[in-house]
Amino acid sequence: MKNILLIGAGLSSSSLIRYILERSEKEDYFLVVADKDEKLILSKTKNHPRSKAIQINALDREERLPYLKEADLVISMLPAIYHIEIAHDCIALQKNLITPSYISDAIRSLDEAAIKAGIIIMNEIGVDPGIDHMSAMKIIHEIQAEGGKVHSFKSFCGGLVAPEFDTNPWHYKFTWNPRNVVLAGQGGASCFIEENQYKYIPYNRLFKRLDPISIPEYGDFEGYANRDSLKYRSIYGLDGIPTIYRGTLRRPGYAEAWSKLIDLGLTDDNYQMDLSEKLTPRTFLNAFLPYHPTRSVEDKLKDFLGPDASNMYEKFEFLGFFEDQNPMGIPNASPAQLLQEILVRKLSLNQGDKDMLVMFHEFVYHMKDEKYKIESYMVNIGEDQTYTSMSNTVGLPVAICAKMILNGSIHATGVQMPITPEIYNPILAELEELGIRFEEKKTKLA
Amino acid sequence: MKNILLIGAGLSSSSLIRYILERSEKEDYFLVVADKDEKLILSKTKNHPRSKAIQINALDREERLPYLKEADLVISMLPAIYHIEIAHDCIALQKNLITPSYISDAIRSLDEAAIKAGIIIMNEIGVDPGIDHMSAMKIIHEIQAEGGKVHSFKSFCGGLVAPEFDTNPWHYKFTWNPRNVVLAGQGGASCFIEENQYKYIPYNRLFKRLDPISIPEYGDFEGYANRDSLKYRSIYGLDGIPTIYRGTLRRPGYAEAWSKLIDLGLTDDNYQMDLSEKLTPRTFLNAFLPYHPTRSVEDKLKDFLGPDASNMYEKFEFLGFFEDQNPMGIPNASPAQLLQEILVRKLSLNQGDKDMLVMFHEFVYHMKDEKYKIESYMVNIGEDQTYTSMSNTVGLPVAICAKMILNGSIHATGVQMPITPEIYNPILAELEELGIRFEEKKTKLA
Repeated sequence: MKNILLIGAGLSSSSLIRYILERSEKEDYFLVVADKDEKLILSKTKNHPRSKAIQINALDREERLPYLKEADLVISMLPAIYHIEIAHDCIALQKNLITPSYISDAIRSLDEAAIKAGIIIMNEIGVDPGIDHMSAMKIIHEIQAEGGKVHSFKSFCGGLVAPEFDTNPWHYKFTWNPRNVVLAGQGGASCFIEENQYKYIPYNRLFKRLDPISIPEYGDFEGYANRDSLKYRSIYGLDGIPTIYRGTLRRPGYAEAWSKLIDLGLTDDNYQMDLSEKLTPRTFLNAFLPYHPTRSVEDKLKDFLGPDASNMYEKFEFLGFFEDQNPMGIPNASPAQLLQEILVRKLSLNQGDKDMLVMFHEFVYHMKDEKYKIESYMVNIGEDQTYTSMSNTVGLPVAICAKMILNGSIHATGVQMPITPEIYNPILAELEELGIRFEEKKTKLA
Repeated sequence: MKNILLIGAGLSSSSLIRYILERSEKEDYFLVVADKDEKLILSKTKNHPRSKAIQINALDREERLPYLKEADLVISMLPAIYHIEIAHDCIALQKNLITPSYISDAIRSLDEAAIKAGIIIMNEIGVDPGIDHMSAMKIIHEIQAEGGKVHSFKSFCGGLVAPEFDTNPWHYKFTWNPRNVVLAGQGGASCFIEENQYKYIPYNRLFKRLDPISIPEYGDFEGYANRDSLKYRSIYGLDGIPTIYRGTLRRPGYAEAWSKLIDLGLTDDNYQMDLSEKLTPRTFLNAFLPYHPTRSVEDKLKDFLGPDASNMYEKFEFLGFFEDQNPMGIPNASPAQLLQEILVRKLSLNQGDKDMLVMFHEFVYHMKDEKYKIESYMVNIGEDQTYTSMSNTVGLPVAICAKMILNGSIHATGVQMPITPEIYNPILAELEELGIRFEEKKTKLA
């Protein structure tokens, strides 16, 4: 029997647990799920005979160590900052480890120790990062294998609400940690390379520089730049590429209105507002609009948004910004915390809503004096509010990778990510069987 | 003989040293000046028989302690963060201490210990903070003494170039630490109260919300908001005041163009630019403008500045932003560091230039059913590049306060600032004799 220890039973673990338990007889798996919330575990394992729920504080080394010792493979679905503690244990105990998160500097520094211990620490194998790496590397390697040279690579990803449930003027609902959405793009400029020129976009212009993206059957989107596109040059073996750009997808109109939230100052997380517990959405908004002895908050917002801004005004109105009845009641809150409270009230998924994950790559390359473009995209709709698209696209690649490590088809050791054909080919093939599939369109350019 | 130890012989110490040495015979002073640069000290003490230059590292406790022990009074003109170390020594040795800087939390926490030691630690007694406190408190106390109630207090201060030497399109030259000018307003919103409403201005709008100020003989200025106006309510005994606002003064046009530097992203100090040592002013600017296959940097900047922006374009051109000959050569530089390099090349005081300090207060108050406005302003021009206005306005209040402590006319102990009549009245009176004087205009409002 192959013992899998999964640490963390949150949203992204649902599909992962289902995948493993569905194959547990055939592959002879036993799944131990550790979380501080036993009910949450049981809601997902459903008391499957090949599963065990362990209610522990996984951040306490003494509590988790006995389960790590018994495991053949460890999967950490904890928040990214905690993987490092699990990784240290896995090296000491010589256990393979998978996490879906970005490789931190701390994790990267364990490469040599992991190799010495003979284990693999596989990272960035969910979605953004994960499926984006695998699907892009597959095409890049194919182009290169045919003798082509990639001139431009642009890649976008977005977690959105499925079209059927797209019922508000923002055309957005939270399918992901709302705090990360509110703080998106803060703490430094976004940078990328365009025709060999380094370009930097400061936070205050991030949601104003947009790329239009159109996807058959799913309509129009807009992409804004992610923080650091440059590091992908070396990761993808594209050093010297003239253009590389990564972005986040939203529906048209979202970014223009979000930019006004930034201009107002509502996304700032650097200070606490005086007497924040007494603020209503209306007084919160008014604190960022100029004083006027008679003009209403509505009119001052219209002044701020400028002419022909009824679309944006409608978005503010939908969020309840003019409501003055109930103070939000959050003491010592930053503007970003108060904005999050307002957004979560109106932009959360409703009962029965489904989410949608959209990914879009564009490659321009030269081959034998010709220039080509490949567009590759994937749209995935969630099944329900447990097996969301986010849960499927994060959890399933992790689960497939777990299977591959346990059946011995991955031989690499050290700190890894899924950018080699031995790893991404079988995972992408199985994801396609599971309904996560890319469409590809190749065009010859003039 | 009264032994004064002055630590730090930088720009702001020139006038302070001259004041003390000019009175050293009459008042029986002996001035010991400690700095790591002996030449700098001697350029200012000029080997005056009642002075001594001590070349030490004042941040080394062992090095400074013998001089502290011999002092009757200590003046710290070090950068603000170092005062706390000197303050600890002064408490241990029971020596009075003066610094011109804002009271830090660390200094504030020494209040009780200073009282126990029987010493005064006088702070915020230069300019902004210093003369602004004293001149404002004098008027506030006068209004209150006559039974008036202050409804609104707005106060502005700016270090600028004297009109005769105002020779560039920015109407600005550095008279102060350039790094502080480049980073002004960063790290949180500016906040103030207007008619009992809290107002917050985020950094990206700070230089767009301007107050026009006009001063007889000196013409027009514009004020932008300082970081925190709210704390002055309790300091000035104005709790409950409906309107309080503090700002910084520049000449008209400066703020509009500076705001474009912010919009571009050039003032950001949060990240390092790739290969920054190779950037010229032109490639630096271009990194923040959109890519275009044929359009020049000049044209792209014009697009960015928008129509009717020839005044702003001229300011960018003056700074040499289109020069592409010599890389700036600063490795691992943030945009803010590179911008500072560009600005310092073009906006520094030339040989023979004089600086100018401008302060402007506006009080609106109610008295016996009538409403009045008092405007109070001070313009001070520097003597030369040693005895600048900045040196005079920072150093002279410190020097006068030193005299008062040594002749026993200040009895307070603990951590203090100059907001009581016993302290500000004699200092303001003597500053007036020294040419730092306020004009006052009272108007009855309708």
